[in-house]
Amino acid sequence: MRRTSRDIRTANRSEVLRRIIARSPASRQELAAATGLSLATVATLVGELLDLRMITEVGYEDSAGGRPRGLVAVDASGGVLIGVDIAETYVRVELFDLALTPRARDEQEMRPGENRPEQVVARVVAGVGAVVARAGEAASRVLGIGVGVPGQIDRDRGVCAYAANWDWHEVPLLELLAEHLAHPLYLDNPLRACTVAELWFGAARGREDAVVVNLGTGVGAGLALGGGLHRGVSNSAGEWGHTTLVPDGRPCHCGNHGCVEAYAGAPGIMRSLRELDPGSPLLHPEDQTATIDALARGVAARDPVALEVVRITAGHLGTGIADLVNLLNPEVVVLSSWVAATLGEPLLDEVRKAVGRYALGRPFAATEIVLSPVPTDPVCLGAATFALEGALRSAGRRPAHRTAPPVRRSAPSP
Amino acid sequence: MRRTSRDIRTANRSEVLRRIIARSPASRQELAAATGLSLATVATLVGELLDLRMITEVGYEDSAGGRPRGLVAVDASGGVLIGVDIAETYVRVELFDLALTPRARDEQEMRPGENRPEQVVARVVAGVGAVVARAGEAASRVLGIGVGVPGQIDRDRGVCAYAANWDWHEVPLLELLAEHLAHPLYLDNPLRACTVAELWFGAARGREDAVVVNLGTGVGAGLALGGGLHRGVSNSAGEWGHTTLVPDGRPCHCGNHGCVEAYAGAPGIMRSLRELDPGSPLLHPEDQTATIDALARGVAARDPVALEVVRITAGHLGTGIADLVNLLNPEVVVLSSWVAATLGEPLLDEVRKAVGRYALGRPFAATEIVLSPVPTDPVCLGAATFALEGALRSAGRRPAHRTAPPVRRSAPSP
Ligand SMILES: [Zn+2]
Ligand SMILES: [Zn+2]
Repeated sequence: MRRTSRDIRTANRSEVLRRIIARSPASRQELAAATGLSLATVATLVGELLDLRMITEVGYEDSAGGRPRGLVAVDASGGVLIGVDIAETYVRVELFDLALTPRARDEQEMRPGENRPEQVVARVVAGVGAVVARAGEAASRVLGIGVGVPGQIDRDRGVCAYAANWDWHEVPLLELLAEHLAHPLYLDNPLRACTVAELWFGAARGREDAVVVNLGTGVGAGLALGGGLHRGVSNSAGEWGHTTLVPDGRPCHCGNHGCVEAYAGAPGIMRSLRELDPGSPLLHPEDQTATIDALARGVAARDPVALEVVRITAGHLGTGIADLVNLLNPEVVVLSSWVAATLGEPLLDEVRKAVGRYALGRPFAATEIVLSPVPTDPVCLGAATFALEGALRSAGRRPAHRTAPPVRRSAPSP
Repeated sequence: MRRTSRDIRTANRSEVLRRIIARSPASRQELAAATGLSLATVATLVGELLDLRMITEVGYEDSAGGRPRGLVAVDASGGVLIGVDIAETYVRVELFDLALTPRARDEQEMRPGENRPEQVVARVVAGVGAVVARAGEAASRVLGIGVGVPGQIDRDRGVCAYAANWDWHEVPLLELLAEHLAHPLYLDNPLRACTVAELWFGAARGREDAVVVNLGTGVGAGLALGGGLHRGVSNSAGEWGHTTLVPDGRPCHCGNHGCVEAYAGAPGIMRSLRELDPGSPLLHPEDQTATIDALARGVAARDPVALEVVRITAGHLGTGIADLVNLLNPEVVVLSSWVAATLGEPLLDEVRKAVGRYALGRPFAATEIVLSPVPTDPVCLGAATFALEGALRSAGRRPAHRTAPPVRRSAPSP
């Protein structure tokens, strides 16, 4: 359970790179001040990142009265990372440089019923090929591919243990992908990918404790505690969507009744709309995205049914989020994913009111509730971040190569 | 947000001492293996603990073929620690040696209505005097006093910001205690004290993630995540008792309806008994302890009303704990405090069944649910542990004294 020296070293190396990504160029002195690490430790970690060619020296700045200070920045030529967002209705692939700036993207639609593992893998492989070509990159420069896939993920075995919406059981997804993609692969759940995206680039950055409430087809609560991702003992923490909100309430696909997801997931919101106005023109029975879009337009036009659906949804969410605020006492709660992005500020306002009604005064006063500020697909971004973390971790395993760049698959060092 | 080098050093020093307390005597090699720290780091930390007189050299063991290895153990003569459990109906004080073995105890009853801060402080001061006298110790050997007090505690200011049962608001308890007690004082909530007791000495020891469900007059869920206590941003994490379990359910003293505490706290259990059988001989209307004791005896005698009350209580608890298991994916859930201890195995069995009905398969399979194995008052033990941690922390602030023992109030080093 105790973190080993190597774990701490990897975490510190990540943290230094994260600061450099957040603000380049940076001096070692600035990095030491920002991370709380000693200047000597920062200098060692910067040296390792230089060896890895993830960062580069970019000149000097004057320091008042002292020696000029060397500046480092992310090395855009050091390689690229790919993030994949496998969702129920699409496969989205983005290619990023080492500063996690998007360089190319691709989206492939998944037709209803198209959900066999081989079909999904084919979409991913096509998407990866497309973004590498579009970015004009050599495949050899891809340092890793992160893949977010809905369901319960066993990371050690690379297996999707269970995905409710597709009825997948024990699908060896990593193995299937590795038959076509010869890069380091990192599999995880979209919820954890979104949480890592908030930690590195969004509203959880620099926060000790944050909850990322994911509102899409499914619902979850990613936990960023103590400045890092909380995974739980079997990597399934965050299954907040199946918290009982209404005993004997609406049936949920998990087999229970009254789960948060049955009210606040996109299909749950559609059901609330149908119950309120069965013939509503806002309702697109077979299309979640179109319905949530129509609701957002209805709210903007002050349509009373749309306003009421948002109020009902926010009331359910607010009760549940108040419980999270009482339990975890986080600095920030982030509303993330496409339903939150589409319904935006009107949903946020109602959620804040509802949380205020149900949470205890002290933790509520200490908590901000915000919309995710991440500008790109957070699952792709977070999945690419897993690949970056993987590259940093594997670097720690090669102490013998510390002064030479690590050997990469088809671009050996000169 | 990042842990500084000193934080890490303090945490590692704690961890080494925790291992020595768990198993004495121990060699530096064993400690390195148990903590994952390097032998050099362990040797330095052991040196610091020797300087602090918290541990002592106790001889050598043979190592196969190598040099004899030096053994260390807790130094029972290094000082004592006091833990105080302030509850609604009593003030309990225990004195411990540095291995956290209880040496003396005292209990003072609080009469109904006796709840002014000065009255409570007087009970604490009397109790501290009593245990020091009973143990035959000099007051100067007390390294610190930890105090667990119900309510929302602002540790930085030493203030009880709010205690519902006593209607305390902004009570400067630390200041009031310091007028009478000239030792380092550490104030916190009983929930967090119990959680730390489980982490150091109980079911959470050596576990990465644990939830300590506290069942007393109030109800809470202490979180031990990543091997440490999760406090939240304003030290109020764990307020699980006010999670909404039944929308529009029983009124709760927090102002909401249907909170976990309204069903699973001792007064809630009494209400369930009254609803089931208003004239039950098990019911002692003004006495929580007597009622819960009678319920336990009723269960042992297979009394159908007592069995049904435990089943109903466990059903409510099980729904709520299932949500915690889904959200946090802990290795272990510990049922702690006096209601859990009194109702024991029959409650545990019903809780396990109920959690199994509501939790998702994967996190449920990864979670053990157990009764607290801590043999003494866990609030006193945890509060004393806060005092021990405080002593270890303050040691880290005196690097100039590293080779000499730190100066103590009335036992200066020669
Ligand atoms: Zn469910
Ligand atoms: Zn309440």
